[in-house]
Amino acid sequence: MKNFMEPESVALIGITRNSGPSAFNLMENMIRFGFPGDIYPVNPSAGKILGKKAYSDVGEIKKKIDLAIISTPRQTTIDILKECVAANIKAAIVVNQGFNDADSRGKEMQREMSEMARNNGIRILGPNTLGVINNFNNFTTSFMPLTKEKAPVGVICQSGIHFVAPREFSGKIGKAIDLGNSCDIGFYDALKYFGNDPDIKIIAIHMEGLSQGKEFYSLARKVVKEKPIIFHKTGSSETGARAALSHSGSMAGNYKIYKAAFKQIGLTVLETGGQMSDAVKTLLYLPVMKGNRVGVITYSGGAGIMGSDSVERYGLRLASLLPETIHETAKLSPDWMPLGNPLDIWPAVMLEGARKAYSVALKTVLSDPNVDGVLCIALAPLPEFSFLDVSDALNEVMDNFPAPKPVVVWTYGPNTGDTARRFETKKKIMAYHTIERATWALSLLRDRYKSVIKESTK
Amino acid sequence: MKNFMEPESVALIGITRNSGPSAFNLMENMIRFGFPGDIYPVNPSAGKILGKKAYSDVGEIKKKIDLAIISTPRQTTIDILKECVAANIKAAIVVNQGFNDADSRGKEMQREMSEMARNNGIRILGPNTLGVINNFNNFTTSFMPLTKEKAPVGVICQSGIHFVAPREFSGKIGKAIDLGNSCDIGFYDALKYFGNDPDIKIIAIHMEGLSQGKEFYSLARKVVKEKPIIFHKTGSSETGARAALSHSGSMAGNYKIYKAAFKQIGLTVLETGGQMSDAVKTLLYLPVMKGNRVGVITYSGGAGIMGSDSVERYGLRLASLLPETIHETAKLSPDWMPLGNPLDIWPAVMLEGARKAYSVALKTVLSDPNVDGVLCIALAPLPEFSFLDVSDALNEVMDNFPAPKPVVVWTYGPNTGDTARRFETKKKIMAYHTIERATWALSLLRDRYKSVIKESTK
Repeated sequence: MKNFMEPESVALIGITRNSGPSAFNLMENMIRFGFPGDIYPVNPSAGKILGKKAYSDVGEIKKKIDLAIISTPRQTTIDILKECVAANIKAAIVVNQGFNDADSRGKEMQREMSEMARNNGIRILGPNTLGVINNFNNFTTSFMPLTKEKAPVGVICQSGIHFVAPREFSGKIGKAIDLGNSCDIGFYDALKYFGNDPDIKIIAIHMEGLSQGKEFYSLARKVVKEKPIIFHKTGSSETGARAALSHSGSMAGNYKIYKAAFKQIGLTVLETGGQMSDAVKTLLYLPVMKGNRVGVITYSGGAGIMGSDSVERYGLRLASLLPETIHETAKLSPDWMPLGNPLDIWPAVMLEGARKAYSVALKTVLSDPNVDGVLCIALAPLPEFSFLDVSDALNEVMDNFPAPKPVVVWTYGPNTGDTARRFETKKKIMAYHTIERATWALSLLRDRYKSVIKESTK
Repeated sequence: MKNFMEPESVALIGITRNSGPSAFNLMENMIRFGFPGDIYPVNPSAGKILGKKAYSDVGEIKKKIDLAIISTPRQTTIDILKECVAANIKAAIVVNQGFNDADSRGKEMQREMSEMARNNGIRILGPNTLGVINNFNNFTTSFMPLTKEKAPVGVICQSGIHFVAPREFSGKIGKAIDLGNSCDIGFYDALKYFGNDPDIKIIAIHMEGLSQGKEFYSLARKVVKEKPIIFHKTGSSETGARAALSHSGSMAGNYKIYKAAFKQIGLTVLETGGQMSDAVKTLLYLPVMKGNRVGVITYSGGAGIMGSDSVERYGLRLASLLPETIHETAKLSPDWMPLGNPLDIWPAVMLEGARKAYSVALKTVLSDPNVDGVLCIALAPLPEFSFLDVSDALNEVMDNFPAPKPVVVWTYGPNTGDTARRFETKKKIMAYHTIERATWALSLLRDRYKSVIKESTK
C-alpha cells in the first residue's frame, strides 16, 4: 500500500486540459492539495497540462513511477495497464466506472484486470474509485474537492461518498482508501496498512461486499485489540444487496453472519452510516466503560425521563447512587426536592447557580464507585444567558479528575453548535445531537471494554 | 382553554422586582413577547414592578382578570388559589415545583388543588409548568426565553424543555401548552382546544402519563382525521417510568397498550423525541403516500445501496420502474451503464450536467404509475461547485407537477445546511439529515394514508 499512500512520483493517465471546478481535473486537485512529489501527466493529444509537459504514454516518461492513476474510457484500460507493467510500475489506480458495476463486457474486463494483478507484479486499486487520501503527506487522487485534517482516523470504503461527505460518515479523515469494485486491493490489504500505521488510531470501514473473508476476520481480530474498528456494512437488506451488486459488483454475502462474527471479536458494528462520526469520536477520545451503570445528571426533569428510557434502550442501567453522592446535591436543593438518579439539578441551579450546582453534581457522581459512566443533560443557552452554560465548569471538573470514566453530554436549546464545541474543547467530554446518541455512545464504550479490553487482560 | 391562551388581562402573583436574564422574570418576558393585554403584578412588598403598580393581593385589583399566574413558594399556593376564586378568576397557572413531583406534603397540596378545581369553577394548569405560548397573539407565561413563529403547530407537553428547545423536539411552535403535573387541565382539554383551533394544522404531543385515557382516545380518534397528531410518550421504559413518577408525578401506564391503540387509530407514534421535528414538517407539508413503492434517485451508487437498505428497514419497497422511465435517463448515460431503481444518475451528471440529468430523472420517476413516493439523494456542494446543486432544478420540476406524491431528499456533503434550506423553500420537498430519516418520513406518509385517509374514504 506504500506506493498508493506515499508515492514520490505519479503518472496521471487520461488527464483533461480543462481546469476549474467543472473539469473535475484530478491533477489540478492533487496540486492544490499540496502533493510535493513528481507529477507526470499522460495525454497523447496535449502538449502541456497545467504547465507541465504531457507525455504520449507512460513508456515515454523514463523515470521511476511509484503510482499510475488511470482515468480513461474503460475500453482502453487493459492496454494502459499493460503499458504500466512494461514501464515497471508496481501500483495503479483505475478511477473510471464501467466494470463489475456495469455490463458483461465490463465484468470481463475486470476479470482481466484481476488476472493481470495476480500475474504481473502490479497491484491495482479500483476500478470505480476516487483512490486515496493521505492528509499526512498532502496526497490525494480524488477529483472531488476534499477537506484536510491530520486526524488519526483511517477510512476504508467502497464509495467516493465517504471522501466527499466526511461529516455524514466518519466525521474526520486522516487517511482513506476507496476500494471501489476491488479487483485486487481489498479490505485485508487496507486494514493491514492502517493496522500498522502509527498515524492511525482508529479505523472506520464502509463495506459493500467482502472477499477474503477469513483473512480479513483473523486480521481484524488482531488489529481491534490495538485500534477500535468501526464497521458499517451496506447492502445488508435484500434489496440493498441487489443494489450493491450493480454498484461495485460486490456479493453482499450473508450480513447476519458477518455481523455476529464481527461483533463477537469486538468490532463496533453500526446499523446505519449516519452513526459513524459519533462512533469514531467516542472511541477515539473517551475511556472505555468498565460496567453498565450510568449516572444521569440533568437540567430538566422531562429530559431525565428521556435519559432513563435511552439507558434501558441500549442495554445499560441507572446506577444506584450512594446516599453521600445525593447528599451533596441535596444540600443545594430545596428541602422538598426528591433526588435520585437521574439527578435533577434544576432547583439547585435556581438556588445556587448553574456552574456551582452542576460541578458539584458531576464531581460527586463521577466519584461514586457505583457509577461507570455519566450522561449529562445541559442547556445550550444564547450568549445573554451564558451563566447557564456549564461547558467550561464541567471541563474544569474533568481536568481535576484523573479516574477514567466516560462522560457524554446532550446539549439542547437555542445554541447547540457553539455549546457542543465548547464541551468538546479538551476532548474529555463528547457532545451528541440527541439523548439517544449520547447514551448509545456510552454503550459502545461498554461493548469495547467487554469484548476487547476485558478479554485481552484475562 | 380560551382564558389560558387568549386572556385579555392577567394577574402575575409572586413576581420579582429583579429584571434581566438571570432574574427569570416572567412579567418581563411577557412584555418583551409583545402581549397587548393588561398585566397586574402582585407582590405585597413592592411598590412598582417594571414600571407598573404592584398590588398586595389579587383582591385589591378590582378589575376583570382572565388568568392568574402564580409563581410563589409552594406552601402559599392553596391560599392564593382561594383568593383567586374569591376574586372570581376562572383560570390559573401554577408555575412552581414541589407538588406531585416532590414529597408527600407536595402530593397532598396537589390533591387539594385538584379538588379546588373540581368544586370552585376555577380551572388550573400545572403545577410545575412554564404555562402556555400563543404566537398568534404574542402571549406567553414562560419565564424562559422563546423563539417566535406563527407556525400552524400546536404542542402539548409535560416539560418546559419543549418550550426551550423546539429545534430538538417539535421544530416549530405556533401555540403550546405545558401541562406540568396536570392537577386539572389535561391532555383531553388541550387536544380539544387545538382540535378546534383553525390556526393549528398539526398537533405534537409529549406525554409522561395519561389520565382520562378513554376520553383522550375517543377525541384523538376524531381529531386525527383532520389534523395529524404526533405522539411521543416518555417514561416508556421501566426505569423511565419511575423517573416520570418523580418528575411530574405521572403514572406512566402501560406503554405497550397505549402505543398499539394510538397507532391503530392513526396517531404518528414516535420512538424518540428527536424524531419529532422531522415528523412535524413531513406531515405538515407533504402529501400522503398512497402505496409503498419508492423510487430512489441518486448521485452516488454507494448511497443508492444505503437508500435501498432504508426502504426495506421502514417497511416500504423499491418500485419497479417502467422501461420508458428508465429509458429517459439511459438516453443521458453511457451505453454500459446498468440502470434501475435506485436510479444512479452520476454518469449522466458527468455527461449532461447535474440539473438536466436530475430534472429528467425526477420528472419521469414521479410520472411513473408504479411509483408512490420519491427519495432523492443529492450532493450539497460548496458555492464554487454550485452547478452540482439541484435544489432549484428539482423545485422547478415540482412546480410543474400537480400529482400529489411525496418527494424527500437526503443531501450530503460540505454545504448541507444551505442546500437543505433551498430544497425546502417552496415546502414541496423536505430535506433530512440522514438517509434513514428521509425514508422514515415517507413511511409516516404511508402510515397516515393507510390508517386515516383510506379508512375515512371507505
